[in-house]
Amino acid sequence: MENGKLSEEKVFKDPVHRYIHVRDKLIWDLIGTKEFQRLRRIRQLGTTYLTFHGAEHSRFNHSLGVYEIVRRIVDDIFKGRPQWDDEERLLCLCAALLHDLGHGPFSHSFEKVFHLDHEDFTQAIILGNTEVHSVLKENGADFPKKVAEVIAKTYENKQVVSLISSQIDADRMDYLQRDAYYTGVSYGHFDMERILRVMRPREDQVVIKSSGMHAVEDYIMSRYQMYWQVYFHPVTRSAEVILTKILHRAKRLHQEFYSFKHSPIHFYSMFEDELTLEDYLKLDESVIMFYFQAWQDEEDPILSDLCRRFMNRKLFKYVEFNPNVQMMTLMELTTLFKKAGIDPDYYLVVDSSSDLPYDFYRPGEEEERLPIHLQMSNGDLRELSRQSEIVDAISGKRRTDHKLYFPLDLLEDFSTKRTAKKKILELLNLSN
Amino acid sequence: MENGKLSEEKVFKDPVHRYIHVRDKLIWDLIGTKEFQRLRRIRQLGTTYLTFHGAEHSRFNHSLGVYEIVRRIVDDIFKGRPQWDDEERLLCLCAALLHDLGHGPFSHSFEKVFHLDHEDFTQAIILGNTEVHSVLKENGADFPKKVAEVIAKTYENKQVVSLISSQIDADRMDYLQRDAYYTGVSYGHFDMERILRVMRPREDQVVIKSSGMHAVEDYIMSRYQMYWQVYFHPVTRSAEVILTKILHRAKRLHQEFYSFKHSPIHFYSMFEDELTLEDYLKLDESVIMFYFQAWQDEEDPILSDLCRRFMNRKLFKYVEFNPNVQMMTLMELTTLFKKAGIDPDYYLVVDSSSDLPYDFYRPGEEEERLPIHLQMSNGDLRELSRQSEIVDAISGKRRTDHKLYFPLDLLEDFSTKRTAKKKILELLNLSN
Amino acid sequence: MENGKLSEEKVFKDPVHRYIHVRDKLIWDLIGTKEFQRLRRIRQLGTTYLTFHGAEHSRFNHSLGVYEIVRRIVDDIFKGRPQWDDEERLLCLCAALLHDLGHGPFSHSFEKVFHLDHEDFTQAIILGNTEVHSVLKENGADFPKKVAEVIAKTYENKQVVSLISSQIDADRMDYLQRDAYYTGVSYGHFDMERILRVMRPREDQVVIKSSGMHAVEDYIMSRYQMYWQVYFHPVTRSAEVILTKILHRAKRLHQEFYSFKHSPIHFYSMFEDELTLEDYLKLDESVIMFYFQAWQDEEDPILSDLCRRFMNRKLFKYVEFNPNVQMMTLMELTTLFKKAGIDPDYYLVVDSSSDLPYDFYRPGEEEERLPIHLQMSNGDLRELSRQSEIVDAISGKRRTDHKLYFPLDLLEDFSTKRTAKKKILELLNLSN
Amino acid sequence: MENGKLSEEKVFKDPVHRYIHVRDKLIWDLIGTKEFQRLRRIRQLGTTYLTFHGAEHSRFNHSLGVYEIVRRIVDDIFKGRPQWDDEERLLCLCAALLHDLGHGPFSHSFEKVFHLDHEDFTQAIILGNTEVHSVLKENGADFPKKVAEVIAKTYENKQVVSLISSQIDADRMDYLQRDAYYTGVSYGHFDMERILRVMRPREDQVVIKSSGMHAVEDYIMSRYQMYWQVYFHPVTRSAEVILTKILHRAKRLHQEFYSFKHSPIHFYSMFEDELTLEDYLKLDESVIMFYFQAWQDEEDPILSDLCRRFMNRKLFKYVEFNPNVQMMTLMELTTLFKKAGIDPDYYLVVDSSSDLPYDFYRPGEEEERLPIHLQMSNGDLRELSRQSEIVDAISGKRRTDHKLYFPLDLLEDFSTKRTAKKKILELLNLSN
Repeated sequence: MENGKLSEEKVFKDPVHRYIHVRDKLIWDLIGTKEFQRLRRIRQLGTTYLTFHGAEHSRFNHSLGVYEIVRRIVDDIFKGRPQWDDEERLLCLCAALLHDLGHGPFSHSFEKVFHLDHEDFTQAIILGNTEVHSVLKENGADFPKKVAEVIAKTYENKQVVSLISSQIDADRMDYLQRDAYYTGVSYGHFDMERILRVMRPREDQVVIKSSGMHAVEDYIMSRYQMYWQVYFHPVTRSAEVILTKILHRAKRLHQEFYSFKHSPIHFYSMFEDELTLEDYLKLDESVIMFYFQAWQDEEDPILSDLCRRFMNRKLFKYVEFNPNVQMMTLMELTTLFKKAGIDPDYYLVVDSSSDLPYDFYRPGEEEERLPIHLQMSNGDLRELSRQSEIVDAISGKRRTDHKLYFPLDLLEDFSTKRTAKKKILELLNLSN
Repeated sequence: MENGKLSEEKVFKDPVHRYIHVRDKLIWDLIGTKEFQRLRRIRQLGTTYLTFHGAEHSRFNHSLGVYEIVRRIVDDIFKGRPQWDDEERLLCLCAALLHDLGHGPFSHSFEKVFHLDHEDFTQAIILGNTEVHSVLKENGADFPKKVAEVIAKTYENKQVVSLISSQIDADRMDYLQRDAYYTGVSYGHFDMERILRVMRPREDQVVIKSSGMHAVEDYIMSRYQMYWQVYFHPVTRSAEVILTKILHRAKRLHQEFYSFKHSPIHFYSMFEDELTLEDYLKLDESVIMFYFQAWQDEEDPILSDLCRRFMNRKLFKYVEFNPNVQMMTLMELTTLFKKAGIDPDYYLVVDSSSDLPYDFYRPGEEEERLPIHLQMSNGDLRELSRQSEIVDAISGKRRTDHKLYFPLDLLEDFSTKRTAKKKILELLNLSN
Repeated sequence: MENGKLSEEKVFKDPVHRYIHVRDKLIWDLIGTKEFQRLRRIRQLGTTYLTFHGAEHSRFNHSLGVYEIVRRIVDDIFKGRPQWDDEERLLCLCAALLHDLGHGPFSHSFEKVFHLDHEDFTQAIILGNTEVHSVLKENGADFPKKVAEVIAKTYENKQVVSLISSQIDADRMDYLQRDAYYTGVSYGHFDMERILRVMRPREDQVVIKSSGMHAVEDYIMSRYQMYWQVYFHPVTRSAEVILTKILHRAKRLHQEFYSFKHSPIHFYSMFEDELTLEDYLKLDESVIMFYFQAWQDEEDPILSDLCRRFMNRKLFKYVEFNPNVQMMTLMELTTLFKKAGIDPDYYLVVDSSSDLPYDFYRPGEEEERLPIHLQMSNGDLRELSRQSEIVDAISGKRRTDHKLYFPLDLLEDFSTKRTAKKKILELLNLSN
Repeated sequence: MENGKLSEEKVFKDPVHRYIHVRDKLIWDLIGTKEFQRLRRIRQLGTTYLTFHGAEHSRFNHSLGVYEIVRRIVDDIFKGRPQWDDEERLLCLCAALLHDLGHGPFSHSFEKVFHLDHEDFTQAIILGNTEVHSVLKENGADFPKKVAEVIAKTYENKQVVSLISSQIDADRMDYLQRDAYYTGVSYGHFDMERILRVMRPREDQVVIKSSGMHAVEDYIMSRYQMYWQVYFHPVTRSAEVILTKILHRAKRLHQEFYSFKHSPIHFYSMFEDELTLEDYLKLDESVIMFYFQAWQDEEDPILSDLCRRFMNRKLFKYVEFNPNVQMMTLMELTTLFKKAGIDPDYYLVVDSSSDLPYDFYRPGEEEERLPIHLQMSNGDLRELSRQSEIVDAISGKRRTDHKLYFPLDLLEDFSTKRTAKKKILELLNLSN
């Protein structure tokens, strides 16, 4: 072994990229850390497996994939390009591998309920007292900080940053393909090999040779379809609604000194807003599922009911619902739910999903996003939506979907509160 | 809805079979039971995900797949065939869906350590006080028993039995393809559509039209490769060895009244050979992982070390080792391990894997297997290995692989017991 | 065999649909006719194989594919639907199989040069003195006429017509997937199985259940990408330009009583606008290639040069060129070409490709196209572009691409007419 | 452009290898020669498209694929290996690209009838007065000779030779995958990427690291299945039998001074055993198909009948037939055919196909083949069949299939010679 290279290349068999190639000892050692191995116990797509049963893959899976895409770019495509600083190579690879390191179980719900941010935890793991930090430090005392900066998008070399996070980065290219593969949907396919081949490092970004425009269009359309067909699937969101409500309920019970049969030890510091990195790293989806399974037998009827729903996939039903124009109906429903003896705080939930498929540059605006630039044959740069009709058509247009979730089974159980329930069903247009 | 049919067909998106089609209310209801949903929390391939990171799929996944294959056979291929009794259709479908219902977490290891048999649990779930049983009973009081018999291979109509379990059954056809898909290996592909099209119900079995012989050869070769390339992969077995030793250690500690920081409540009845169905159904891989994670912090150095190895994938290394001819070496190693202060009961393990890829009929022998019969164009039946040179070449030949597993990291740590460790490495041909 | 069914189903192995299933004797017999077998000698994508070397597949291939898609719709999806008349089934299958029967070699070019219409020939073959006609007649004296009407879109049952030709018909669904498969491009994938499952016959059309909208969007985007990435590829059009000019040249030489070394016997009646069906059926791409190969040795320098270019893929180069605003440049170039001794009639060609990816209904307009209708959950119909943002964005927008083609090699050969050639290169922005 | 490199890499979209990458000007120029472009007009699998309609791909296609595989080996796998002479790289690439250059139309049949050898023509094209020769010479006066030697297997560096032709060479690896892709069969898949990664140049061969043994087993089984399922398919052979008989008939008619309506000008020199390279290069499948189409109208009933059969796919039927033990039956059939007025020289044909899937080394024997060697972890070489049970089982075992072909339609036409025909059908076990 010389220069930090393994004596023999290691490979992982990967269904999306065929093989993941590792030649650097640093990468190999990072993969072996317990913080990285922990990603095996966190699903890439949270509750999506309850809608698409194939989507049981972990973030470990995806993280290797992002690494492999970046490795191909820096080793095959950018190699030897004048504007590309070869010393940044390892930095790119580490940032790619570790970009999702801070994700916890069912991140989306946990972040919402407990006001966490997985990006903060990624930073904390890279810079904290962890195996990952020790491994990174072997490459130089300031190396962990640089990796953290790349992931935080504050690193000075924006070419490096944009490989990891931009509107056409390795992260997105991997997850679109990978999530399509595991769910089995037909969307999510695009010609990544072509996109990689037309990427060019240039000044403070990575641009796309204009001959590859159609492949980029296809990628953006794939992203659009994956968002609406998979990521925002209403059944997945139903499971997420229930999950969120379980967390809310458990927290409130804890605050109200409810006596749990199975105490939420792992959750204490989170419930009390005193979560440490050490505690956070002990959380994974096995732990969450363990509690949810146990809590099916709690005395509290709401907690046990919600846990049973989640474990056994008895999800909430939904109707289209626009909270902006139907506020009165929602208030009416809330009142009726109370009358019907069903707590609307847990059983009547508006959920909204929203996506902006591509955006051109709007300096100063919230969520400012760097646009994709095409490099024309004469060398000029041109923003993608000015060149592509298709992208122009969806550029900057936010699309939002609102649903109202509720337990239809409870409403159709007329053994009690028949009148209120009937009225609710009428309001939801579900009576027959 | 009439005749037990859903008002509208339901589909599941499946990456292997594209879609799983459900038209029968009975099937839909079975899928919704908590015992069936539990299969989502049990991986199809146990510890294989530590070798092939893509193999994170559950038995839920596979069970739907087996159902779909049988559905196609009975609905598309056998439909209207004179010898095929249409009333058995639903029985086939249920048996296909439920055939793995009794699997527990990491079945292979648990069955070995605790002398369990997942098939007994499958029977118990189908016949016991469960949601599955209630749903099945709606189709007739003796229907659960019939389904159980099909799975137990004792049902009188052997055509039904052989669709679910024979040397070319829906179970194998699904798992070969599915496991290949999720691991990403190139093996496991064969022309299932062709095999289905040449299947014919005949007397007490399902036979294959001789024109499909090559597709069957290909299937048998796929199976052979999957066994040796995936299922018996030495790294997977290393993880399984550790898992098995964790269970052994925890049981012994329990028997020795060790005071656990985190008591193995879920394991009590198993440790004491008093496992009930109710307790069994509470076990899933989240629960196991929860304990293993917690036990990393136990005082007992062996239990905590083994759990850390499993959770963080610090597996045992291995060498080829034939216990039949190297018994003396094994004894010597055992002595040396003790001298080196490494308990050979947990850290020196011979593991043997063995497979018989295809067998012709050997009446009276242990593991008697029904052969695959080809139906020649004149109607005669001919046993596959008499017609296919390839199959003949591997027919009846058991292949066994022995490995010796040990923790190389401990042996290479020369801070203590240097002499003994050096000698061990020499014996293992690992000194340099 | 009973009721026109084959005693045993026949299958064709097909790379796109896995298998093509034939159960009807009529279909089997049609495939065996010499007019249908002739489609094996006509490429599906004309000159595209000179750009995408994989695209060597024939119209035979595609015709079977369209048949198979329609077969699945009528046998699996529409079967038993109240609004679907089972008697039309065979009519659909025949029309699907035969819809491209009248295509000649390199249709696009031939139709343009000789003012032919392959649809007229399809009608003529079905209704004329052919094997196809004889086979169809066995199903009833007026059956050939009905099949012809379906293909001509004049058949009264518009449900039947729209399966074969509409904005989302079996023809398009097959060719997008098939052409993507053979070229190897990543576009052209969409979830056909889902689209088929949401198709519903309704009044005078086939509509799509609204739950399948995203699959339809994906199909329309696939179509868009295939048009611009494959069908209108500028290199393919270069070959087509040359092919067209060969035909023009040969016709003119024939009219001018040029003495061919290799007389264009097969072309006589076409050159003289007296093409008969019998002559037409003798034309296939082998015949054309045979002449082009022979004509490489003709005395006429233009004919031999163009044929050599086509046979040996020495194609014309191209630049972007807008004939609407650059008319003066074109005139100047024409003059300069003459000065340079290069005949602009054959060597300076503007080619324009244009596509309208989807259109809503514009009654009375030329090229009126029936829109795709979604069937909402309440039964209402809604035109696709009103429901889908993506489709709305491209709906009704014609996109056109203009290129100017010319032989760069001749222009760069400065052995003669150096000045004129230099000036041409300057005008084309190709001097350096 | 420097050092013979193109200023920008060129790519071809390829459905099997995704992209074919060309960086060397020499390779680009070779692809542009008319001799190489001619391979577009010669199908890779001869008459197979009449059995598997997808198999319409050309040798051009395959030749690019072999080149790409070798390119990956020399550029990615062998690069920098001490035993690998970098100067041989271009030689490998050229030999890979050109190895099939001498193939003519329907090679198998033409070689048999006219005693040609495509390998002689490959040599002749490389060394003769051709565009290919001119391009090769630019790389050195003796370069064409070296390329020819590699293809002839006489080149001194056997590592180079064995990449192009050995029992596991780039040629086979491409055609198995490519032919599987275009036919659509499930066979032909193996993990090429893994095989490439374990190839090692060593002394006078390329060996395989033993860890890749299973991938090689899988490759050999794929080869076995492709031979029997695709290449030797009896329907394909039926078309080949007819093709062969057409050539025989035309030659005999020519020798007998038959007056053709359509003279076989392109065949003259071949019929008279005076074929020149120039004439040979004018032959392609368009030319053959042109004649066969024209000859459908010849007066000679045998020639016109056979041509009609070929063009319209009215093939001969077949029965199993062992010429070694059924010689008497064959003689009897011959007599009966004559009685029935059907010329047995053209209408009663025994065809035998035979394959040896893998062979170990048998020095001195005819068809001596170099075995595949595994490189064990200790560096020893071991012949594959000694290590692999599966390969051992089929190693050195020649399998042969005999069929008897005849025109069933003529035999079933009882309008004349009823008695003889009935007797023939009885002998063939086809009477009912």
